[in-house]
Amino acid sequence: MGENPQGRICPLRNINGGVLKAGMHVTVLRLGHRKNRDKRVTTHVCLAARALGADGVVLNGEEDDVVLAGVRKVADTWGGKFAVSYEASWRKAIAKAKKNGASVVHLTMYGERVQDVIGAVRKKKRLLVVVGAGKVPGDVYRLADFNVAVTGQPHSEVAATAIFLHELLQGRELERKFTSAKLAIVPQKSGKKVVCRPLRARKN
Amino acid sequence: MGENPQGRICPLRNINGGVLKAGMHVTVLRLGHRKNRDKRVTTHVCLAARALGADGVVLNGEEDDVVLAGVRKVADTWGGKFAVSYEASWRKAIAKAKKNGASVVHLTMYGERVQDVIGAVRKKKRLLVVVGAGKVPGDVYRLADFNVAVTGQPHSEVAATAIFLHELLQGRELERKFTSAKLAIVPQKSGKKVVCRPLRARKN
Repeated sequence: MGENPQGRICPLRNINGGVLKAGMHVTVLRLGHRKNRDKRVTTHVCLAARALGADGVVLNGEEDDVVLAGVRKVADTWGGKFAVSYEASWRKAIAKAKKNGASVVHLTMYGERVQDVIGAVRKKKRLLVVVGAGKVPGDVYRLADFNVAVTGQPHSEVAATAIFLHELLQGRELERKFTSAKLAIVPQKSGKKVVCRPLRARKN
Repeated sequence: MGENPQGRICPLRNINGGVLKAGMHVTVLRLGHRKNRDKRVTTHVCLAARALGADGVVLNGEEDDVVLAGVRKVADTWGGKFAVSYEASWRKAIAKAKKNGASVVHLTMYGERVQDVIGAVRKKKRLLVVVGAGKVPGDVYRLADFNVAVTGQPHSEVAATAIFLHELLQGRELERKFTSAKLAIVPQKSGKKVVCRPLRARKN
């Protein structure tokens, strides 16, 4: 970011391709999903995670085939690789991620300020980003390597996930190409332009 | 942003106080709210707008006193100035904003890439940021001064609003102080620390 003649977001100025650092892997764990209450917000968390550079999402809480199918359908239609799964035990999901070498980032308004810790978080190669729905168990705070706040104000886990990923990836996620998309949009000043054909596979 | 020794978000390095440029004013217009379907997502849009530096929100679509009261309650409890209102006609809301000198930014996956146009948008003093719920009328695209896409992927109007404001304000919104808050959070590595007392009024 920062002012510059082109008005472009600053980290893009020195990027030579590639969305993530080599080998970086980010999964979002949606904690404590409630089928009736959270259906749309959970879908937004998953789709924002996909659009903004995460590699996959794990749903926890009530199993919800409608949400999982909806997210899979978007990924299938709009391209890119995005893993979607369900895990009934958040403890198992966190333990598995840690065993695989991931650092656990819990997004919470009570945590350290994102602008203070994002530099340390960026040094990690694998991340599990935990995003709560209802009240988050105290153990999540203790198991997390980082409790991170996108402001200490009450707002939205969708917004927190989006800004966290955007800061983590320093704007590079906006340049991402989605491979094997059936639909893609051509940016327009006004109106809509959608390309709907088997697109030539591009490096993701 | 960009790597730096402190791991801080880059625009903060050269900021000497103040969240917005002098005189800058940002209102979010939530278009076409549907009471049953959008209750929670609209609330997330409004709260994310407040937390991330907007000065107010205008609700359009079905009038929803529960959503409006909820957002007002958060603003009252957590401080800062945040205007909340309802306008049955989105045309009137846009016309009024334009009459007051605002530029209209419509967030849509079909628009120009945020990273390409944010520099031009930042030059404006007043903005009305239009965020749709259901299908957005074609006239909104034509009336908007900027149709802006936070990726051309389907995701979330909450995430799009958040990233747009974050880019517009270049991370300064994360440093914002909320005046006259009844509750405030003290950032913690783990656990929760809430200050609940009449806080000394601080410059917003």
